[in-house]
Amino acid sequence: MASFATHLVVVVVTILFAAMASAEMLQDVCVADLSNAVKVNGYTCKDSTQITPEDFYFKGLANIAATNTSTGSVVTGANVEKLPGLNTLGLSMSRIDYAPNGLNPPHVHPRASEIIFVLEGQLYVGFVTTAGKLIAKNLNKGDVFTFPKGLIHFQKNIANSPASVLAAFDSQLPGTQSLVASLFGALPDDILAKSFQLKHKQVKKIKLRYAPKK
Amino acid sequence: MASFATHLVVVVVTILFAAMASAEMLQDVCVADLSNAVKVNGYTCKDSTQITPEDFYFKGLANIAATNTSTGSVVTGANVEKLPGLNTLGLSMSRIDYAPNGLNPPHVHPRASEIIFVLEGQLYVGFVTTAGKLIAKNLNKGDVFTFPKGLIHFQKNIANSPASVLAAFDSQLPGTQSLVASLFGALPDDILAKSFQLKHKQVKKIKLRYAPKK
Amino acid sequence: MASFATHLVVVVVTILFAAMASAEMLQDVCVADLSNAVKVNGYTCKDSTQITPEDFYFKGLANIAATNTSTGSVVTGANVEKLPGLNTLGLSMSRIDYAPNGLNPPHVHPRASEIIFVLEGQLYVGFVTTAGKLIAKNLNKGDVFTFPKGLIHFQKNIANSPASVLAAFDSQLPGTQSLVASLFGALPDDILAKSFQLKHKQVKKIKLRYAPKK
Amino acid sequence: MASFATHLVVVVVTILFAAMASAEMLQDVCVADLSNAVKVNGYTCKDSTQITPEDFYFKGLANIAATNTSTGSVVTGANVEKLPGLNTLGLSMSRIDYAPNGLNPPHVHPRASEIIFVLEGQLYVGFVTTAGKLIAKNLNKGDVFTFPKGLIHFQKNIANSPASVLAAFDSQLPGTQSLVASLFGALPDDILAKSFQLKHKQVKKIKLRYAPKK
Amino acid sequence: MASFATHLVVVVVTILFAAMASAEMLQDVCVADLSNAVKVNGYTCKDSTQITPEDFYFKGLANIAATNTSTGSVVTGANVEKLPGLNTLGLSMSRIDYAPNGLNPPHVHPRASEIIFVLEGQLYVGFVTTAGKLIAKNLNKGDVFTFPKGLIHFQKNIANSPASVLAAFDSQLPGTQSLVASLFGALPDDILAKSFQLKHKQVKKIKLRYAPKK
Amino acid sequence: MASFATHLVVVVVTILFAAMASAEMLQDVCVADLSNAVKVNGYTCKDSTQITPEDFYFKGLANIAATNTSTGSVVTGANVEKLPGLNTLGLSMSRIDYAPNGLNPPHVHPRASEIIFVLEGQLYVGFVTTAGKLIAKNLNKGDVFTFPKGLIHFQKNIANSPASVLAAFDSQLPGTQSLVASLFGALPDDILAKSFQLKHKQVKKIKLRYAPKK
Repeated sequence: MASFATHLVVVVVTILFAAMASAEMLQDVCVADLSNAVKVNGYTCKDSTQITPEDFYFKGLANIAATNTSTGSVVTGANVEKLPGLNTLGLSMSRIDYAPNGLNPPHVHPRASEIIFVLEGQLYVGFVTTAGKLIAKNLNKGDVFTFPKGLIHFQKNIANSPASVLAAFDSQLPGTQSLVASLFGALPDDILAKSFQLKHKQVKKIKLRYAPKK
Repeated sequence: MASFATHLVVVVVTILFAAMASAEMLQDVCVADLSNAVKVNGYTCKDSTQITPEDFYFKGLANIAATNTSTGSVVTGANVEKLPGLNTLGLSMSRIDYAPNGLNPPHVHPRASEIIFVLEGQLYVGFVTTAGKLIAKNLNKGDVFTFPKGLIHFQKNIANSPASVLAAFDSQLPGTQSLVASLFGALPDDILAKSFQLKHKQVKKIKLRYAPKK
Repeated sequence: MASFATHLVVVVVTILFAAMASAEMLQDVCVADLSNAVKVNGYTCKDSTQITPEDFYFKGLANIAATNTSTGSVVTGANVEKLPGLNTLGLSMSRIDYAPNGLNPPHVHPRASEIIFVLEGQLYVGFVTTAGKLIAKNLNKGDVFTFPKGLIHFQKNIANSPASVLAAFDSQLPGTQSLVASLFGALPDDILAKSFQLKHKQVKKIKLRYAPKK
Repeated sequence: MASFATHLVVVVVTILFAAMASAEMLQDVCVADLSNAVKVNGYTCKDSTQITPEDFYFKGLANIAATNTSTGSVVTGANVEKLPGLNTLGLSMSRIDYAPNGLNPPHVHPRASEIIFVLEGQLYVGFVTTAGKLIAKNLNKGDVFTFPKGLIHFQKNIANSPASVLAAFDSQLPGTQSLVASLFGALPDDILAKSFQLKHKQVKKIKLRYAPKK
Repeated sequence: MASFATHLVVVVVTILFAAMASAEMLQDVCVADLSNAVKVNGYTCKDSTQITPEDFYFKGLANIAATNTSTGSVVTGANVEKLPGLNTLGLSMSRIDYAPNGLNPPHVHPRASEIIFVLEGQLYVGFVTTAGKLIAKNLNKGDVFTFPKGLIHFQKNIANSPASVLAAFDSQLPGTQSLVASLFGALPDDILAKSFQLKHKQVKKIKLRYAPKK
Repeated sequence: MASFATHLVVVVVTILFAAMASAEMLQDVCVADLSNAVKVNGYTCKDSTQITPEDFYFKGLANIAATNTSTGSVVTGANVEKLPGLNTLGLSMSRIDYAPNGLNPPHVHPRASEIIFVLEGQLYVGFVTTAGKLIAKNLNKGDVFTFPKGLIHFQKNIANSPASVLAAFDSQLPGTQSLVASLFGALPDDILAKSFQLKHKQVKKIKLRYAPKK
């Protein structure tokens, strides 16, 4: 009986930690209960009597991140997973730091538009419309630029000094699909070879840098 | 004076044919007035007294399209531009025909999820999550599969005979961003070279196939 | 104690099988956990580590259904209840098969517009606006037609051979309210008699075909 | 020339008075410009400098309407067409007056849920779910009841004295599809005969009361 | 064991009574299970087999409430907390009763527009745009007026007799932020003194009437 | 005649430059045509062939604004009126600069939540729930905080040096209703006196600082 009860407790606890959120605000706040194991569309709400100012606060964007990555850029998110008070608000931020000449390579956010403010440095940024037109511009410190929802975009540090931008999104969890990593990390060789009209050998070479995900 | 007035009429008429549509239905129907030069978010509505059954009808998906393209696939849309009655309905269709072994290369729809029904043939289809996981499957005639909004996906004819699918979208104008064409047709060499970690010579070679758009 | 525990298990299990989904996508995918007894607006999500390609796949539309029903038509759904990966995508499909001269009688979908593609046969289809105007047309194989959200519509096979259409909806669970069945299966005699200006005897006669639902 | 110019002015003015509204508020107010001939999804906005309190006001629900109609009920709307300030607000009202034993026959609102408050009298009201279940109740003065979006519903005065209700909708233009009138006023005889399993003669008899719309 | 089981029951019961609702209807009805302790965006749904007409019914607006409050007005809500069938419908009602010369002081509804119908009496009502313009009007019995989403508004009984209005909202839980109470009940003295350019002594005096919330 | 024609041209041109935007994206981009006199819900779109990178760019947030205002704070917006490419994107930014001890007094955004990043300085910020609970916190350079939609909030510089924040909103035109200015700038004396329980003389004194808007 005891082991049955124990098992039951585990089951119940996983339910208790269920998480859910929705697209339209139906109360003042619904702070995400991130520890909840039940998966729903978004996150469940923390008990409203337990809400604190810390739920609406995040200090993780204050400092420059280490930019010694393969492309020379690092994205630090302040989305609902870090700032649970953003749950249901349809809003989040990121900080992007760039090494000299660093690149935030072409990617799409499946669920959000983006607006950026240049904290430091000089960047070349742009997006591509579905008609294949490039809309791009050089930005300086203090400049603002915007990337429409679901379109391919990128930012490149065009100076020999570090750069940083602050980005905002109209989703509490915008998602990021880095194109080269997704294509060469996930797709079969023959699809890639035919898509890029590359030889299988060339495809395999590029793929070496992207270990396939399980 | 006459030519001025004539010009004015042209201007006025182009205004009269302005087009607009919106995200939520605010009347029974709002048939797109596609000839209208005024640009809005979607399309304006045709005068409701002029609505005919033809506004809700399209016969352009009935036949197999010629599939002798570079990738061996052709997409024929039945969206609001072809079927004006779809305006404001948040719904459209496409027919995709594949040559033997033809590929509909990796692409995203910035504003829609997609569901397909295999009219004929055998296909290998899939999508990649933002976590880089490939969700793919072989499909046979009559099978249904779905691609979530904004994620990279593709379909490949895996037989030596033609194939066709019927696709539906939750947008009257889902848009398509073909990834290889957008990347190599629109982005500067240095961004591509750094993103794919290819040599500039290799980038230029792939680019030859994609004339940059104005 | 055992019966208490047993009862408890039932309670817990019903909770575990709760399902929920929402109107806007807040993550890449939220595959419906259809076995969950907890009722929410839509369905809860399956654990994302357990997602498989089968979650996004359905083969139940591949074959013609038996059309020997009272009206000579059968609707087979590929909605979230059959294809759990459709959860949160706002999209679903149905296959409708018609006996010779079969009718899909007047009905409304309370939560979706519909677009159809004629797989086989010849149909007379149409909808009625709230102003009482009929918008109807004869369709042939390969033709596409659309029915706006919430309006009365129907399809009738006008040939002596079977017909089939593929329908798509902008909801993962559009719902169907068949008008004659709902009216004569659910409403009291006096409401029906007054609404249709029929005699009670006539109402009772039509009602015989529609056993009231509990 | 003058008459041409005059005609042109008329054309231009009708354009200027174009009307449009949308699903989400994008400014404080967007009062409908109802005289505008340009048709869009909803209504265009009146010049904001011309807004007056009267734009947000309607006195047409103050009095009981004459209820000597065929079913003994009259609906008076306070929607965006009468109260232009409702444009984009997603909200409207109606007053429904009932003769003794009058009926507001079964209907659906394609774009709105409804909530009613009984101003006077006793009513039997209800709706039918898509599963064919009737949810109905007797109401007295001061009672509140709600009808979910897109479902068949009705109200019947069950007393020998007049009754009135105030109804509110979550749309500025909910639309009403009266079922018997739409079915017998718009659909062909054979569709009706087969749907209701009535003889053509019976169908024609019911149809007499509903002159077909053009 | 018994106490463990008892504890378990409590845990389970709190789960069972979890509540959740969402912005778009994904089924016919989702009656709020108000006793559920699990907090989500809105309310969870009651088991659909347990739905009764009472779930869609509320009689609490039938009578005039006692208006001997400090401002001479009382709001009685018929929102999802009182009428669980409103869950997911995006609609609710309130009754507001006013003592002679009573005031419903300036407030905002963060998530809803409002439309009112004067049941009895004479009122001066209005709202303020974000440009600071007052839109106000005297209303009589039977008049309708509307307050756009998120804007400051008020109603004042301008007669020496009682008054009542019926209000409807485009949210099942619109929320109310009474401005003077929120400002002087919650904000620190120095913020208030600087905002109103009042002396600290004056601020403290006004604050006496509003005990700070924890 | 010439002056008539000229006038006509002006009329036509103002129509051509009509502006409109909507809640859901229905094309890649819809750059606002801000010069258009036709008022709609949002803004109309610029001709897509005329789109330039400058449409998605704004440099007006680069510098600190002069903060010698009555409350010691200045808000500089980068919304759709300044950055037309934001039209339909549901996203905007503002820069707020504070004099030493400057206050951005209590206000609400009727159509948006807000997230802020501290560019410089130390601030005390907070919001009040509809239950009257204050959620507030001291912030330092680099900290992030969020204010839920429609709730009263404020920021105060708590240091003797200047401060600046970057704010983002989930609306291209969030709107701002400054509470003290709206109340004392727009409402009649008697409403204010009764709401704040102040004497008329005190009300008049506070009102002196807020010239009533027409």
